[in-house]
Amino acid sequence: MALITLLTDFGLQDEYVGVMKGVIAGIHPKARVVDISHGIEPQNVAQGAYILAASYAFFPIGSVHVGVIDPGVGGDRRILALEVDGHRFVVPDNGLIEMVLAGGLPLTAVSVESPRYVLDHISHTFHGRDIFAPVAAHLAAGLPLSELGPAADADSLVTGVAPRCRFSTSRCVEGQVIAVDRFGNLMTNIGTDAIDRLELRRDGRGMVVELSDWRIDGLVTAYEKVDRLAPLAIIGSRGLLEISVNGGNAQRRLGAGITDRVRVRLI
Amino acid sequence: MALITLLTDFGLQDEYVGVMKGVIAGIHPKARVVDISHGIEPQNVAQGAYILAASYAFFPIGSVHVGVIDPGVGGDRRILALEVDGHRFVVPDNGLIEMVLAGGLPLTAVSVESPRYVLDHISHTFHGRDIFAPVAAHLAAGLPLSELGPAADADSLVTGVAPRCRFSTSRCVEGQVIAVDRFGNLMTNIGTDAIDRLELRRDGRGMVVELSDWRIDGLVTAYEKVDRLAPLAIIGSRGLLEISVNGGNAQRRLGAGITDRVRVRLI
Amino acid sequence: MALITLLTDFGLQDEYVGVMKGVIAGIHPKARVVDISHGIEPQNVAQGAYILAASYAFFPIGSVHVGVIDPGVGGDRRILALEVDGHRFVVPDNGLIEMVLAGGLPLTAVSVESPRYVLDHISHTFHGRDIFAPVAAHLAAGLPLSELGPAADADSLVTGVAPRCRFSTSRCVEGQVIAVDRFGNLMTNIGTDAIDRLELRRDGRGMVVELSDWRIDGLVTAYEKVDRLAPLAIIGSRGLLEISVNGGNAQRRLGAGITDRVRVRLI
Repeated sequence: MALITLLTDFGLQDEYVGVMKGVIAGIHPKARVVDISHGIEPQNVAQGAYILAASYAFFPIGSVHVGVIDPGVGGDRRILALEVDGHRFVVPDNGLIEMVLAGGLPLTAVSVESPRYVLDHISHTFHGRDIFAPVAAHLAAGLPLSELGPAADADSLVTGVAPRCRFSTSRCVEGQVIAVDRFGNLMTNIGTDAIDRLELRRDGRGMVVELSDWRIDGLVTAYEKVDRLAPLAIIGSRGLLEISVNGGNAQRRLGAGITDRVRVRLI
Repeated sequence: MALITLLTDFGLQDEYVGVMKGVIAGIHPKARVVDISHGIEPQNVAQGAYILAASYAFFPIGSVHVGVIDPGVGGDRRILALEVDGHRFVVPDNGLIEMVLAGGLPLTAVSVESPRYVLDHISHTFHGRDIFAPVAAHLAAGLPLSELGPAADADSLVTGVAPRCRFSTSRCVEGQVIAVDRFGNLMTNIGTDAIDRLELRRDGRGMVVELSDWRIDGLVTAYEKVDRLAPLAIIGSRGLLEISVNGGNAQRRLGAGITDRVRVRLI
Repeated sequence: MALITLLTDFGLQDEYVGVMKGVIAGIHPKARVVDISHGIEPQNVAQGAYILAASYAFFPIGSVHVGVIDPGVGGDRRILALEVDGHRFVVPDNGLIEMVLAGGLPLTAVSVESPRYVLDHISHTFHGRDIFAPVAAHLAAGLPLSELGPAADADSLVTGVAPRCRFSTSRCVEGQVIAVDRFGNLMTNIGTDAIDRLELRRDGRGMVVELSDWRIDGLVTAYEKVDRLAPLAIIGSRGLLEISVNGGNAQRRLGAGITDRVRVRLI
């Protein structure tokens, strides 16, 4: 029995998420549905791409992950169903899946085109309910991907939406703030792999993390390792560098936000 | 096995919704519970009435829909259990059900008065937990409506709370903004039936949608049909006219909000 | 089949809660998970302590209640698994459980130390996912408490975090505002037991509730017992004194908030 997860920018104030679950229950009454988050910034595909990649592997193999951050709803963007890493995904073809694919794992993808597995009436504005939810319910109930539509070539998928970190020199990696969580922690797009590469080149040098005028010495392994209300850098739970304030809110204290540049340098 | 849905103005910051689910699990451990929304504006029965009507039919036949927007809690308002359109509802008698009934479908209703199916201790302020949740659990477990209390005459139900749109002339329908969703889309109380009637009378004329000083030409079938950040009118996923901004937030861009008047006119 | 509840300060905008549910589903696929709340003020252990105590008993006996308000994550605070009143709890040893224990019920407690029932990789910042969730899943699946680690002496638990009300004279009980709900109701730490004691000593005297310059005469049993927009005092659904405004928002109307002092006096 497969589990279905939902990741959207719908928020929870409206009925949108609940109604998707109603549609799923009508098609596959035993399907279990878990919300990953509905708090993605409206239409922020890049933020969704990082969250999806950081989350899916914590769910059982075979889960069906539905991602609806879909500013192109009603237009001509494709809807994809994919199988990657033992998990299945139903997402718009707008880059939302790209960080899941960044590891280069083999994938199968189809363009969802069959009218058999969607609602009879397709609205102009809510394909989450009318297409994504019923398709996910059918997949969870055992429908093979290939029934949904023609194969989609891996090279044809939209990518390049989620900004990546990069080495500006061999001793400096540059990235940006991708998301800010409820605690004001600043999640960056600088992953453990980039940090590990810097560590290999460290050779006794110090490491600093820079965000606007702030300069943080090194990474810590617990918030409590710095003074209360001091800023710190830490590898967060998503495997990405995060900038936090011990016992406080980094977003407010550092005056920082999404798209702010972050640099990690050997000195 | 029946599904129970919850629609309230409780929000999710407090324990209210979770505790209702605990009570349900204690009575009917296998009941599945889906949140429609807990983000109705506090005590805004009219908003709840439209959302309930727009949502229930996407759930399986036989579902039990609990609606608790209940400013009269602890007073002498009745609590109703109803069966309409193959679905069951447990709601305060304050107009919350009126848009479900607006289509004129046959209904059975009782006034919930039996002390057998509620918690032993009834608090002054939280009948959602003490009455609505246990009653819904019993209904989902198979209890007939008639066990809950005496029949309630359809004519005796409170109505007139949800504002309706109306034709001011044969070529002009007037309504208002009923809700604003997370994206800033302005949901009106002007339904497809009213728009369809205008279309029949169109006879080559143009159609405009007016909201304060804004005037939008015609309806579109996708956000992308207008320029980025331009306002547009569209039949939304609830079957109601919505006013949106392509790639933006109509509430902010148009300076609009709940109760603002909206007019659709043939010109 | 045991139910698992979650009470955290994680909010719902991020993926944290969803990922905890993914971990639970991987270990115990049939476990049902109910959110009590994720809206506790960040790191407000006292608020969490009151909410947990007010909520757990509405869930079926045998439920596993996970509480993660955990500012000490990654430091050396213990994680506790407890059995009290037929329920089980997994919480940091920081006072979060103290109001559940305030009644003096017998308890069994262990310090969670076994590496067998947690994720392979323990992050620095998210023990909710890496420790609390898998431990709860194993408990719900039938694991005995004693398998998790050595017994923790009741006297060794951290307490004194949640502020209690106290009698300043035999006729006056003093407490504070502990939480503000979505409706602006001010929940205090003055319980029915304290009010009952005052009632016994009443002897014809009046009772007043004081909050800054506001003075409210007596307690009512329904919001509607006072004029619209008038303040009132009532025993709320948690069995605690609450200060509300009929049809309005007490937080805004009374200009009050968490930690404001509240006094109930016989006059």
